[in-house]
Amino acid sequence: MSGENGRLTSGERFRVEYLLQGDEAAARATAREVCVEQTVEFPEDLLPRGPIPDEVVGRLESLVPAGPGRWRAEVSYAVETAAGELTQLLNVILGNSSMRPGVRVERFVLTDSLLAAFPGPRFGRAGLRRLTGVERRPLLCTALKPMGLAARALAEQAHAFALGGMDLVKDDHGVTDQRFSPYAERVPRCAEAIARANARTGRSCLYVVNVTAPVDQVLERAHLAKRAGAGGLMIAPALCGFDTVRLLAADASLAMPILSHPTFGGSYVTSPQNGMSHAVLYGHLPRLAGADATIFVNYGGRFPFSREDCAEIARASAAPMGRLPAIFPAPGGGMTAERIPDLLEVYGRDFLLLVGGGMHRLGPDLTENARRLLQLAEGM
Amino acid sequence: MSGENGRLTSGERFRVEYLLQGDEAAARATAREVCVEQTVEFPEDLLPRGPIPDEVVGRLESLVPAGPGRWRAEVSYAVETAAGELTQLLNVILGNSSMRPGVRVERFVLTDSLLAAFPGPRFGRAGLRRLTGVERRPLLCTALKPMGLAARALAEQAHAFALGGMDLVKDDHGVTDQRFSPYAERVPRCAEAIARANARTGRSCLYVVNVTAPVDQVLERAHLAKRAGAGGLMIAPALCGFDTVRLLAADASLAMPILSHPTFGGSYVTSPQNGMSHAVLYGHLPRLAGADATIFVNYGGRFPFSREDCAEIARASAAPMGRLPAIFPAPGGGMTAERIPDLLEVYGRDFLLLVGGGMHRLGPDLTENARRLLQLAEGM
Repeated sequence: MSGENGRLTSGERFRVEYLLQGDEAAARATAREVCVEQTVEFPEDLLPRGPIPDEVVGRLESLVPAGPGRWRAEVSYAVETAAGELTQLLNVILGNSSMRPGVRVERFVLTDSLLAAFPGPRFGRAGLRRLTGVERRPLLCTALKPMGLAARALAEQAHAFALGGMDLVKDDHGVTDQRFSPYAERVPRCAEAIARANARTGRSCLYVVNVTAPVDQVLERAHLAKRAGAGGLMIAPALCGFDTVRLLAADASLAMPILSHPTFGGSYVTSPQNGMSHAVLYGHLPRLAGADATIFVNYGGRFPFSREDCAEIARASAAPMGRLPAIFPAPGGGMTAERIPDLLEVYGRDFLLLVGGGMHRLGPDLTENARRLLQLAEGM
Repeated sequence: MSGENGRLTSGERFRVEYLLQGDEAAARATAREVCVEQTVEFPEDLLPRGPIPDEVVGRLESLVPAGPGRWRAEVSYAVETAAGELTQLLNVILGNSSMRPGVRVERFVLTDSLLAAFPGPRFGRAGLRRLTGVERRPLLCTALKPMGLAARALAEQAHAFALGGMDLVKDDHGVTDQRFSPYAERVPRCAEAIARANARTGRSCLYVVNVTAPVDQVLERAHLAKRAGAGGLMIAPALCGFDTVRLLAADASLAMPILSHPTFGGSYVTSPQNGMSHAVLYGHLPRLAGADATIFVNYGGRFPFSREDCAEIARASAAPMGRLPAIFPAPGGGMTAERIPDLLEVYGRDFLLLVGGGMHRLGPDLTENARRLLQLAEGM
């Protein structure tokens, strides 16, 4: 397969930064093992000489201290190892090393040629602002809950929230196709309810449908949502695979904004020494896969995400990434009037604020609750 | 949606056992929060009275000590919450609680009605023994590597291994559709090479093809493998989603045995306090999804899986699970003559031994290396 010059690859390489533990010798040994594990997974001394060890095996580009007993290793990989597949790219980036404690992916930088293999976000921040007609303030989103309510009751809720001024109203991530509110009944009812509210308010509230589903039903459900008049899709990449986000984003006949949901994936970030950084799991990866907004749990809520974890996600959602547009960080929870100055400091004005069960805490009139939240946001 | 009796559900409930941290009061509070988080995700005091809190919210069935500062909570959920979807079942079992340190899924027990929603393993241990013609000893499997070799070279390797007596020869999990050895060229070549060896030996070595791929290409690649004469499929559920295993297992026009691969999923088990147990990630889940063998890393190798972790996987692969047959645990690595007695003690004779790069360590003649491994196995 090698060309006339004996090369196997173009020479273009993407880079992954790993956080490693131990003293310098241990970290260097781990880094070398990662280079092999993530590519050839083969005894190095038995590799045939030539382009496989020279090009295909990962290359340790640098190893620098990152605190006491911690090291930052930059490893480069030939773009060809990823085969232009999101699944295989993730396999090279973390793959078997996910089973190795003390190896954590901190960030990655792809080449333009590799980025070109992925559609990226179709809307991004600018597109979502255009669709919702919200120019400067944070976007407001809530969820239809609790699971167990009938489709008709969820549609009433949707109507009330849209009437009050929410910009996006989404399905709860646990509501899929239960007999309490079957998908084929719920989605048209909620879409109609929100369209009716929009006709009254003149606003453009988007109904965002949860299409987290058996893999062979995701596209079908998304197209049903589109036909019903829904305005967006939500999917949980840890349940369906990140590549399913890519599949939805790439579908020009859908052309709907996508929210990624963090359920089932938290194990990648619960340890500061393993898995991935918050920036990678909630920033780089959803954006690369094509999500337009990335939901995660806000600091100061019922999950232990720190303020810095959240700031890191916000930065990753907008940092330069080839031609890919910035996407919205979508922190869930923790919205009270007193917290607004700090939220603005962490996220700026470019975020999508998700208020779920908390919308019901303010009183029984959901339209009024949405109005109050909108007033807060308009003051931001 | 409630029937005449005001009920929302059938009353059938499945059970999940969580390992929790802290003193008894803290563990009980966490358990209660899990019951809510995994279902309605809604302020409990604001739920409408009646069947939603009574039936839809998870129910803490028991809380018992599990060591100093550790508790075992058994929570039951209405089967209807899972909607007969593997994706949603995983969402109820772990979902958002994956973001919460100190909550770990230890095991789960489904009802027969819920199990009936999933095809389960088509072959299991008995089916794989029938296909390979191996009656009593452990099955032997190796991988075609390293990434970077051309299809022709990989096919030669496949031929040599099959000639020497390997029962399964699989693609390396990092080899997908790279330009070094494109899928459409590699798979027919390797299948043909193994068929040629089988014709000579009279054995039934299976070529197991890696179909870990962009989600919209998985089935297409699997059918190409089938047409080419391959004998099995391998897929990484953490990359493609567990439901993709279900999709492959359910496809009667394929009817090929499936090996699940652990790449990218290790973050669920790297901490003993979070994520899932080894039994769940490598035992219950692949089996429920329909894998016939579950690959994981053997104890004493380059990853820190303990002997007890591996024994737990082996037990989960065969423990009663409704109508689902037992599947093969497939430990990778660590096979030397001296270790055989201990391997037999942990796994019995019912396992699939995966030897990857180590097959090349024994010398340049791969057929001879396979013969030596087969002799060891036949002595088991």
